[in-house]
Amino acid sequence: GAVDKGVDFANYFCTYAFLYHQKEMLCDRVRMDAYFNSIFQNKNHFQGKTVLDVGTGSGILAIWSAQAGARKVYAVEATKMSEHARSLVKANNLQDIVEVLEGSMEDVVLPEKVDVIISEWMGYFLLRESMFDSVICARDRWLKPTGVMYPSHARMWVAPIRSGLVDQKKNDYDGAMDDWYGFLDDTKNSYGVDMSILTTPFAEEQEKYYMQTSLWSNLHPNQLIGTAAIVKEIDCLTATVNDIREVKSTFSSTISMEQTRFCGLAGWFDVHFRGRIEDPAQQEIELTTAPNTNNGTHWGQQVFLLHPPVHVDQGSNLDISFSMIRSKENHRLMEVDFDVKISQTSGKILPSIKKKFYIE
Amino acid sequence: GAVDKGVDFANYFCTYAFLYHQKEMLCDRVRMDAYFNSIFQNKNHFQGKTVLDVGTGSGILAIWSAQAGARKVYAVEATKMSEHARSLVKANNLQDIVEVLEGSMEDVVLPEKVDVIISEWMGYFLLRESMFDSVICARDRWLKPTGVMYPSHARMWVAPIRSGLVDQKKNDYDGAMDDWYGFLDDTKNSYGVDMSILTTPFAEEQEKYYMQTSLWSNLHPNQLIGTAAIVKEIDCLTATVNDIREVKSTFSSTISMEQTRFCGLAGWFDVHFRGRIEDPAQQEIELTTAPNTNNGTHWGQQVFLLHPPVHVDQGSNLDISFSMIRSKENHRLMEVDFDVKISQTSGKILPSIKKKFYIE
Ligand SMILES: Nc1ncnc2c1ncn2[C@@H]1O[C@H](CSCC[C@H](N)C(=O)O)[C@@H](O)[C@H]1O
Ligand SMILES: Nc1ncnc2c1ncn2[C@@H]1O[C@H](CSCC[C@H](N)C(=O)O)[C@@H](O)[C@H]1O
Repeated sequence: GAVDKGVDFANYFCTYAFLYHQKEMLCDRVRMDAYFNSIFQNKNHFQGKTVLDVGTGSGILAIWSAQAGARKVYAVEATKMSEHARSLVKANNLQDIVEVLEGSMEDVVLPEKVDVIISEWMGYFLLRESMFDSVICARDRWLKPTGVMYPSHARMWVAPIRSGLVDQKKNDYDGAMDDWYGFLDDTKNSYGVDMSILTTPFAEEQEKYYMQTSLWSNLHPNQLIGTAAIVKEIDCLTATVNDIREVKSTFSSTISMEQTRFCGLAGWFDVHFRGRIEDPAQQEIELTTAPNTNNGTHWGQQVFLLHPPVHVDQGSNLDISFSMIRSKENHRLMEVDFDVKISQTSGKILPSIKKKFYIE
Repeated sequence: GAVDKGVDFANYFCTYAFLYHQKEMLCDRVRMDAYFNSIFQNKNHFQGKTVLDVGTGSGILAIWSAQAGARKVYAVEATKMSEHARSLVKANNLQDIVEVLEGSMEDVVLPEKVDVIISEWMGYFLLRESMFDSVICARDRWLKPTGVMYPSHARMWVAPIRSGLVDQKKNDYDGAMDDWYGFLDDTKNSYGVDMSILTTPFAEEQEKYYMQTSLWSNLHPNQLIGTAAIVKEIDCLTATVNDIREVKSTFSSTISMEQTRFCGLAGWFDVHFRGRIEDPAQQEIELTTAPNTNNGTHWGQQVFLLHPPVHVDQGSNLDISFSMIRSKENHRLMEVDFDVKISQTSGKILPSIKKKFYIE
């Protein structure tokens, strides 16, 4: 369906109009280092070239591109953040190179095609926000046939985890339901209305909130209890909107930890800066949001909890089918389905677990 | 300007579609008791009458109206909550009396005019949400000339307060700015970009957030340090949208506490159920959200902090001019201006303090 621009602004773009939010991204050192290195260690892609920055925000990537020697940089931003980007460009004396254009990428008209499209378009679990659509649109319209995408590739990962969150969320849910039953009594006794008919829908609402909504988390690597699998690979130079509208994958994971609880699945992504085959990067750079002992990223991982957790042992096998589609109500949010079959080391196969999640 | 319905739904109605949120209101005993008593102690207004409940939510007011003897109740609700209201009506065996209509009050067509319009339309500091517009619209279209409004009257109050929030918010703001300066250094040193030009807009953004956004609070009565003033009185039977689009008032308040800090102003409201002059309530009921030692309400009070606080003494006088208008970007949010002139007991008059606030 067509997207109402006003609604999309109210739901999505509004947050990006705050410097506070841009600063959160600018403070993510893993992210910053990756883009910084991808540009300054691959000056060949920037020197004397024309660049398009899709969703420039504060203008940081456009400014780096100019500092790395670009001849011209078009920096497109949908929100009023464009005004701050423009003043930042000026304060860094790059106003002759960086041109900030306020508008949707989908609407903006450039005076020429570009050699490089750079963008930081990744949302939680890569595809939340559906901003890559705008990058695809920019690419198809404005990238020269010989042009390069920054980043050039992206991958989505899934792995089984253990996590105390599974107990915490179950407790929260139980607490909410206890509270509900107290409320039913009060309403009946004090106000003469029997609301018990609403118990089922209230429980469903709370279950969705506490147990079926994926959670942001920066996991410790030792919370990963089995092999991680790639569920999607994207070549940013060729991917179409149709390729990313739905992600489907069937894969196996072997439990690599002794006597543990399988509490759910975690999803994350990485992106790579490799240039293009005919014009490769001098230095390939990777930005990963995998669980890490050092700095997490502001993306963290998305955690999908399975209630109740299942005891598994080293060598247990998980056969997982995964699918992710956009929510019908809001194309920038996602719905995820997992179907998990556990084969224990004894050979016993447990009844398969189907669960639906919302990335809100 | 015209309101985009999709945007209004995304920004406003969406929260009301959750039982969780309806339950919060249903758990506010001050609110519940007032409406319950207004109906059951004034059965004369309901017995054999037709009633319209504007924004029925869970259906509670419609159900009570039916239980009090109404012949017919039209219960209008814009969100999918209407389905829960309908099942609740059925479960309480009132489906022959209460008819739930899903839709905007502005669009709904009733088969007849009604004797009573009941509605719980009050937002923070009475007018936030601008829902009374919909009640006015319903009244002008569907209330019989002899009809009664529930509630019948509303008032807005303002009083000077003391509050530790003034220090807390100043600390939060200072912390955010310290953090900003660290961020500027990092960005310059690690990434070669001087972002200091953004300091002023960032400070403005943070100031707006921490110091110019009104706060929800349930104040203790001893935090009131001077006389409270009524800044608006509304007769729900006759008020027009023009009457409430802007609230302006000039008033004085005398400090009633010794040696204290004037930290800001608090705003709250009350509503009254008095029927109409020709057809008065048998029992007048009041619902107040004033600071209270017993139960607070879910509305609490809105607190407008003045930085820095000013030392005042018993007998100091405040001359205050107050205005509240709807925000241009979102007609359901408010902008408040205060202009305060402090006359100390010594006779000294301090330079007047002008401050703008946002009720978000
Ligand atoms: N279709 C579109 N057209 C223009 N800007 C867009 C867009 N979709 C998203 N954006 C903008 O893209 C930005 C993504 S956040 C990244 C900001 C900046 N490039 C940085 O790396 O720090 C946001 O500011 C958002 O408002
Ligand atoms: N113009 C309009 N048309 C229909 N419903 C409206 C409306 N404006 C607000 N509402 C609904 O009015 C309700 C206000 S909250 C009050 C709910 C209920 N009457 C109770 O007292 O518990 C919300 O459910 C909201 O969705």
